[in-house]
Amino acid sequence: MKIKIINPNTSEAMTKSIHRSAIQYSRPDTEICTVSVKSGPISIENFHDQFASIIGVIEEIRADKYGYDAFIVAAACDPGLAAAREIVRVPVIGIGEAAIHLASLVAAKFTVVTVFPRIVPLIEKAVEQSGLLGKCSSVRSISACVLDTENNPELVERELMEISLKALECDKAEAICLGCSGMTKFAEQLEQKLGVPVFDGVVSAVKLAESLVDIGKTTSKRLTYQYPSAKKYCGIAESFEPDGR
Amino acid sequence: MKIKIINPNTSEAMTKSIHRSAIQYSRPDTEICTVSVKSGPISIENFHDQFASIIGVIEEIRADKYGYDAFIVAAACDPGLAAAREIVRVPVIGIGEAAIHLASLVAAKFTVVTVFPRIVPLIEKAVEQSGLLGKCSSVRSISACVLDTENNPELVERELMEISLKALECDKAEAICLGCSGMTKFAEQLEQKLGVPVFDGVVSAVKLAESLVDIGKTTSKRLTYQYPSAKKYCGIAESFEPDGR
Amino acid sequence: MKIKIINPNTSEAMTKSIHRSAIQYSRPDTEICTVSVKSGPISIENFHDQFASIIGVIEEIRADKYGYDAFIVAAACDPGLAAAREIVRVPVIGIGEAAIHLASLVAAKFTVVTVFPRIVPLIEKAVEQSGLLGKCSSVRSISACVLDTENNPELVERELMEISLKALECDKAEAICLGCSGMTKFAEQLEQKLGVPVFDGVVSAVKLAESLVDIGKTTSKRLTYQYPSAKKYCGIAESFEPDGR
Amino acid sequence: MKIKIINPNTSEAMTKSIHRSAIQYSRPDTEICTVSVKSGPISIENFHDQFASIIGVIEEIRADKYGYDAFIVAAACDPGLAAAREIVRVPVIGIGEAAIHLASLVAAKFTVVTVFPRIVPLIEKAVEQSGLLGKCSSVRSISACVLDTENNPELVERELMEISLKALECDKAEAICLGCSGMTKFAEQLEQKLGVPVFDGVVSAVKLAESLVDIGKTTSKRLTYQYPSAKKYCGIAESFEPDGR
Amino acid sequence: MKIKIINPNTSEAMTKSIHRSAIQYSRPDTEICTVSVKSGPISIENFHDQFASIIGVIEEIRADKYGYDAFIVAAACDPGLAAAREIVRVPVIGIGEAAIHLASLVAAKFTVVTVFPRIVPLIEKAVEQSGLLGKCSSVRSISACVLDTENNPELVERELMEISLKALECDKAEAICLGCSGMTKFAEQLEQKLGVPVFDGVVSAVKLAESLVDIGKTTSKRLTYQYPSAKKYCGIAESFEPDGR
Amino acid sequence: MKIKIINPNTSEAMTKSIHRSAIQYSRPDTEICTVSVKSGPISIENFHDQFASIIGVIEEIRADKYGYDAFIVAAACDPGLAAAREIVRVPVIGIGEAAIHLASLVAAKFTVVTVFPRIVPLIEKAVEQSGLLGKCSSVRSISACVLDTENNPELVERELMEISLKALECDKAEAICLGCSGMTKFAEQLEQKLGVPVFDGVVSAVKLAESLVDIGKTTSKRLTYQYPSAKKYCGIAESFEPDGR
Repeated sequence: MKIKIINPNTSEAMTKSIHRSAIQYSRPDTEICTVSVKSGPISIENFHDQFASIIGVIEEIRADKYGYDAFIVAAACDPGLAAAREIVRVPVIGIGEAAIHLASLVAAKFTVVTVFPRIVPLIEKAVEQSGLLGKCSSVRSISACVLDTENNPELVERELMEISLKALECDKAEAICLGCSGMTKFAEQLEQKLGVPVFDGVVSAVKLAESLVDIGKTTSKRLTYQYPSAKKYCGIAESFEPDGR
Repeated sequence: MKIKIINPNTSEAMTKSIHRSAIQYSRPDTEICTVSVKSGPISIENFHDQFASIIGVIEEIRADKYGYDAFIVAAACDPGLAAAREIVRVPVIGIGEAAIHLASLVAAKFTVVTVFPRIVPLIEKAVEQSGLLGKCSSVRSISACVLDTENNPELVERELMEISLKALECDKAEAICLGCSGMTKFAEQLEQKLGVPVFDGVVSAVKLAESLVDIGKTTSKRLTYQYPSAKKYCGIAESFEPDGR
Repeated sequence: MKIKIINPNTSEAMTKSIHRSAIQYSRPDTEICTVSVKSGPISIENFHDQFASIIGVIEEIRADKYGYDAFIVAAACDPGLAAAREIVRVPVIGIGEAAIHLASLVAAKFTVVTVFPRIVPLIEKAVEQSGLLGKCSSVRSISACVLDTENNPELVERELMEISLKALECDKAEAICLGCSGMTKFAEQLEQKLGVPVFDGVVSAVKLAESLVDIGKTTSKRLTYQYPSAKKYCGIAESFEPDGR
Repeated sequence: MKIKIINPNTSEAMTKSIHRSAIQYSRPDTEICTVSVKSGPISIENFHDQFASIIGVIEEIRADKYGYDAFIVAAACDPGLAAAREIVRVPVIGIGEAAIHLASLVAAKFTVVTVFPRIVPLIEKAVEQSGLLGKCSSVRSISACVLDTENNPELVERELMEISLKALECDKAEAICLGCSGMTKFAEQLEQKLGVPVFDGVVSAVKLAESLVDIGKTTSKRLTYQYPSAKKYCGIAESFEPDGR
Repeated sequence: MKIKIINPNTSEAMTKSIHRSAIQYSRPDTEICTVSVKSGPISIENFHDQFASIIGVIEEIRADKYGYDAFIVAAACDPGLAAAREIVRVPVIGIGEAAIHLASLVAAKFTVVTVFPRIVPLIEKAVEQSGLLGKCSSVRSISACVLDTENNPELVERELMEISLKALECDKAEAICLGCSGMTKFAEQLEQKLGVPVFDGVVSAVKLAESLVDIGKTTSKRLTYQYPSAKKYCGIAESFEPDGR
Repeated sequence: MKIKIINPNTSEAMTKSIHRSAIQYSRPDTEICTVSVKSGPISIENFHDQFASIIGVIEEIRADKYGYDAFIVAAACDPGLAAAREIVRVPVIGIGEAAIHLASLVAAKFTVVTVFPRIVPLIEKAVEQSGLLGKCSSVRSISACVLDTENNPELVERELMEISLKALECDKAEAICLGCSGMTKFAEQLEQKLGVPVFDGVVSAVKLAESLVDIGKTTSKRLTYQYPSAKKYCGIAESFEPDGR
């Protein structure tokens, strides 16, 4: 089975760390290819960055439309999921939704902890889109920004610990979902210290993708995710023109 | 007051018809400039088209960041609203939300009637984002596609009438919101025949934009719609790189 | 265009201040007439006061059924809106709903700040009726009462500032809606100090009324707001007896 | 125990029929006094009628503030409940809410059947206020009007049967609540024919009032239903001026 | 009228205290029989205890299927209500739902106060099943466990007072529902000190059962609560085998 | 990895068919043990059957508390999930929730198709507990009963096809979840004919269990699913007495 993981930002360090997480838990017969988008922001911290990242996500999926058994969009705000699902038949999974689906199976309530206050509204929208808002005790943020996960890991780890504890104590969270693909590397230690399951989206998405491919399920083409019909696109958008399949 | 209306698709015929609607009801001292996006699809009929249209919407807003008092995004699925609101301070209004806000002031329940079944999920998401889902009796579609509003107006008008009647009778709608900017020209006749208020999004958005500008209100920069911070964007996205204000 | 603004309480000082706000932002060709109800309480601070105020609101609308293009009910709890909409065809707008509809166009979440804890349940019901509860971060109150807005403006202003800051910090509000028509005069200063848009209901309602009249929209007579049929009313209610149109 | 039942409309025939229902199921030691309002409409069929009926309801409660152990407001749209609860300490129960509270104890879902399509929005609002919307399979109406329950009982009975069957078959209702105090007399036969429990609001309210009085519970004066403070009321409203207790 | 109250735990002290509460407010002609389950836990403090208690509840109802006019399940988490309603025609009422239905008639919002943090999720599920979640300001717990209500009443009473005050002040509760049948004995004093109505579930359930029996209402056998059809049960479950009526 | 699948009914034929489905898609290194409960009903078709089945489910989990890496409860109404999660640390997954979690990843809306109208309320409750009610277009039932899936497969298959088509056409379902473990064998053909993904709960649960075990996640013991404390159980329940771990 071949899975392509698309890091919707252009940070190579983060792409590498995503890849490391993915292969740590993927099955031996799963081939993982992890790429940064070619077009997009160095990190996603607001709706404008998110919009820009979709450009790269769609590019990457179009580039390999037929070569993969599943795609994973590796940002916790699940950018471009609906559009991506339209253009291929194979499953497309967001790491945001992946973590919270799995968390819901072992915990009554989960909190998503993300970087940077400014990102909270993006994550809240992703939780809402997943349909699991009712299981979400809170979305909380640390003060550090996305790139600090690479540049200042001690700060991120310390804040992550503090905020997660608050979620357990004040919001009655019973599991933590990591709301930033750069947080992957702190998952294990966090889980040990907190004593509750901690879900990394990358790892969760790999397992869900493997599951869906194993049982031969693909995206429903009935209504919402039908293929875009062939149509004229202009300007910068021209390179995204759909060919009707 | 200067308002720029952005038609997120590249159909010039539709842009002209949008402009005609807008100036019919705008105030004498309101200067309306209506443009098609340069980058984008010829029509928006699925999430992939919607994604592509955002490219053009953001381009158009960036191009005239300081010259206008308000922007209107003239597609009923309100593409790119959150990102657009981040990059300027002046109000950015979607025609989808505009129609349903005004409808809510004179009717207990409204139905949005759009073209093409495939578009219903996009409109449903826009209604949800507006916060007014509880006032929405239904989202219904005719069978014709977006461009039929220009090419086959008789068909569109007939179907619009039939479906609107169904909304009144089966869903207990008390007002109709037009869910496609190409339907503007049928609003008046439809209203006369149905005997309930029919809201065109373009006209509604112009009045709401004039209202907000009149009273000096701009987009809140407190959290969700803060300016994107300066950041490196690569590839096709490079032209959207934010400069931190 | 002629708009009648009905202050549902009998405080002349408040009526004057409502009128001042209204004409400050109304268009030159809009004629505003502002009146206190003849029947009703000196202020609205509970459901009983609200009930009593509806008597006066309905009286004022019946008195001028055909002379105006729109009516505005100028109390933040929107008293009697449904009954008022039944007896005329022209739009009837509440200042409570007006502020929050406009706020929703420029802010992801708004808080309504009202006087007096006792009024919070009334405002919460009004927000619920508007359909925009999902965009409401909180309804908060100061300790001062309605008439303090005239008699002790320094107290009101200071508390308004404090409570609004709490709404921004604790509830993640991104805009403030003033939940009392007597607060109008503090709007501008509050906005400057807080750095977020502050919506006064009177001003908002005037702009929405102008908008609806401009585009020729009237209240839907399809179901909920049909004219009351002719019917015998007795006792004090006799003067409200409907004549079937 | 003394209970005062207030028929919020002025139809004496309906008041008599309400009284008959009430005493049929009240306990021997319960003294029931049933009155028509002196001020109000001959029937409640829209929000304007409902407003007018509140005048009479408040009059009747004020007139006997200290003489009764509980008040019942005998219209299915529960007019004036919040204001009525403020001015007395003893329980005030609406027949609309009463029927659906009891129905929820023996059925998973209930439908409210009312007269006249025009009344459906009033009943829907009452169900919403009760908090039990989630148990409500539908609100349905027959074509007959309120006074037909007295003048054309055969028509009402036949339609009631037909519509109730539809509720069971199409909406999966498992109990029927009668949404008009004039329907009381059909309850028994309807129940026998349908084979599901049928709840009359008058009877339900009497039992709930007896229950609350038995166990010494009164309306909470903590926040929402505090006594209105003493305050100047003018014009027609003057007779409702509260004295601060 | 004969009512059987089933204490779903095996604590005889608690059964006695439940009986005392019940007969204090039951009507002279109501015969109350209160029993502990023969099979079940000594107290219910988690979902496993709750499951075990259902065994005893079903046993007790089966044992007296035809002898009683109503059954009351006397644990605040309402264990086994749906199954119990299927096997008899007479009403089956839970004390959890009983308290909150009555509280909703005299207070805009109620808080349920229970023992032990671990029980909160059980109570939350019961509130949700009742349909009245929207009226619930919070579910709060003291630190003491169920059996402390018998063994350490001073502790329970003090904590109950403290937590109830917090509910009034922080959550805007306007009534308190006792979320443990062992708390019955503290109801009266708590009400006097707090100044808001305090609802004991046992007392509430007795009054609601009397009400339903008085007016001849039984559980709807239309769909959800149909009799279980005759069917082979094995092992321990064999004693519960249904005989098709 | 060792997974124990518990069929909560005593039908051996169904247990065998569950096992066949499970091993068809499980990984080579996954050891699957499938058992019928020893205590419980021959099929689950109402809340009483469901209660009885929990007895057997808990027995089976207690019997093998330490021997398995995960447990699967193989009835679509997910009986006893909360209690089961308390008594072990390893994941416990219901086939009802499993199918709808996976369906949500490839379809915007799903319908659950179950046997027998009487079972619909059980499935609706399970969907609600999963948190994914908002993605559920409908729960529909065929007329056949649970055991017909073994005894009259042609009938079940034909009805399954008809009802699924109705779900696609009338309810806008985009995927089908099978709401009965006996329907497993029809999944493949149904999917081919309908052209939308069809999710069997058994297969879905196996993949989710494998995923959770692979990444080392266990049930959160923070609050809701803590181990039951040691406690005296009496009567039939005695065999379930918890030992405090």
